[in-house]
Amino acid sequence: MQIVIIGSGNVAYHLAKAFKKSGVEVSQIFGRNATELSKISEELHIPFSTETLAEADLYIISVSDSSIAEVSALIKKENCLVAHTSGSVSREALAGNYRKSVFYPLQTFSKSKKLDYHKIPFFIDAENEEDAEILKNLASKISKNVMLADNKKRKYIHLTAVFACNFVNHLFARAKEISDSQNIPFEYFLPLIDETTQKIHELEPKLAQTGPAVRGDNRILELHEQLITDEEKLKIYKTLNESIKKMYS
Amino acid sequence: MQIVIIGSGNVAYHLAKAFKKSGVEVSQIFGRNATELSKISEELHIPFSTETLAEADLYIISVSDSSIAEVSALIKKENCLVAHTSGSVSREALAGNYRKSVFYPLQTFSKSKKLDYHKIPFFIDAENEEDAEILKNLASKISKNVMLADNKKRKYIHLTAVFACNFVNHLFARAKEISDSQNIPFEYFLPLIDETTQKIHELEPKLAQTGPAVRGDNRILELHEQLITDEEKLKIYKTLNESIKKMYS
Repeated sequence: MQIVIIGSGNVAYHLAKAFKKSGVEVSQIFGRNATELSKISEELHIPFSTETLAEADLYIISVSDSSIAEVSALIKKENCLVAHTSGSVSREALAGNYRKSVFYPLQTFSKSKKLDYHKIPFFIDAENEEDAEILKNLASKISKNVMLADNKKRKYIHLTAVFACNFVNHLFARAKEISDSQNIPFEYFLPLIDETTQKIHELEPKLAQTGPAVRGDNRILELHEQLITDEEKLKIYKTLNESIKKMYS
Repeated sequence: MQIVIIGSGNVAYHLAKAFKKSGVEVSQIFGRNATELSKISEELHIPFSTETLAEADLYIISVSDSSIAEVSALIKKENCLVAHTSGSVSREALAGNYRKSVFYPLQTFSKSKKLDYHKIPFFIDAENEEDAEILKNLASKISKNVMLADNKKRKYIHLTAVFACNFVNHLFARAKEISDSQNIPFEYFLPLIDETTQKIHELEPKLAQTGPAVRGDNRILELHEQLITDEEKLKIYKTLNESIKKMYS
């Protein structure tokens, strides 16, 4: 099976690298950004082009959500399988007369950071069982966690990730504002943060909850509300404590 | 220096163990729960008692916040230093005619879990520089991160920890509700969660923010609000997205 990756961003790079490591040959990486493409090409020994899209059985499009439709229209071939790698774009957004699919790796990618590819879950969506099987087999060469997920399911996966990752990072950012205001190095909180995350590998998060709200320690809750001076953090403080109290009431 | 630990809970156990590992001798662990005390005593080869508090230069009280005053009143000796290990109780809550202090390890402890003690930050508070020095030296035998923190500072440390840990765990719990509702194994999100936490070891959380709110992707925000069916999660979703938007506007 001839595979071409379209795109030169973080996901495209890491996918190409993961394939390489797993012994899956990629015949071309294609895109607009010659600088990025040539860097990837040099590192992974994969030919690249900004002009002529190579013949392939499978095209994997790893570009920004808003470019998927436009980029996918560049594929004029009909007897092939095309997949995009986005969690929040539907399969039907691909614009062409080929078989449409999704090949969605659930991870936050940055080019400089090494990743354990076999731990990255892949979510697959396809028009028929045969195509799903092709993509599941391919993903299984990289990862141990491969699962089918249609448009609806992928939306919920994305929503879960927003709660478990985007919002979590924002709490870190707001927490750092508090520690900065008192000249307490935020680094001091990293062991506690690491332990919080490690814990849920062994214990359901609902059972791992600690802190004043779950203990019903209203003395501390009131004291903290007096310490918080800005509106945004106060809203977060109240909303999350209320939600904790409701979960355990 | 003779050291006695009072209490048989998670903090008392881990402190005793950390001292043992660092070559600091503890002459007694004292408390009410004979079963727990005898377990710790057997594992760490430290004498225990439920009746007669041994003579010591330093008593470390590791009991629940609400019991600190009562337990500290058991110490009748005057020429000694007494520390409690709580982040949210003032030094003056100790009830006796001895020198009062705080020896606060910032970590979430559970008995069964092994911890890297040298990574746990210790916050010290004391009546005078000499006592502060004693406790700083002691903490330095366990940990690399030792810092003075008075009552006010400790309150902010606790507040920071609530944002960075208690609230973070609650978001994990709410995220799991979403993935459970669609039969998506929550385990699939653990690599992404681990990466989110790992990232802030290298990158300031404010700079590491990803997701629809920071991108200003209102299409996704509206779609997600339609997917969320319960009030608590919807409040969290809106509050945190608003806070993200404000931080980057």
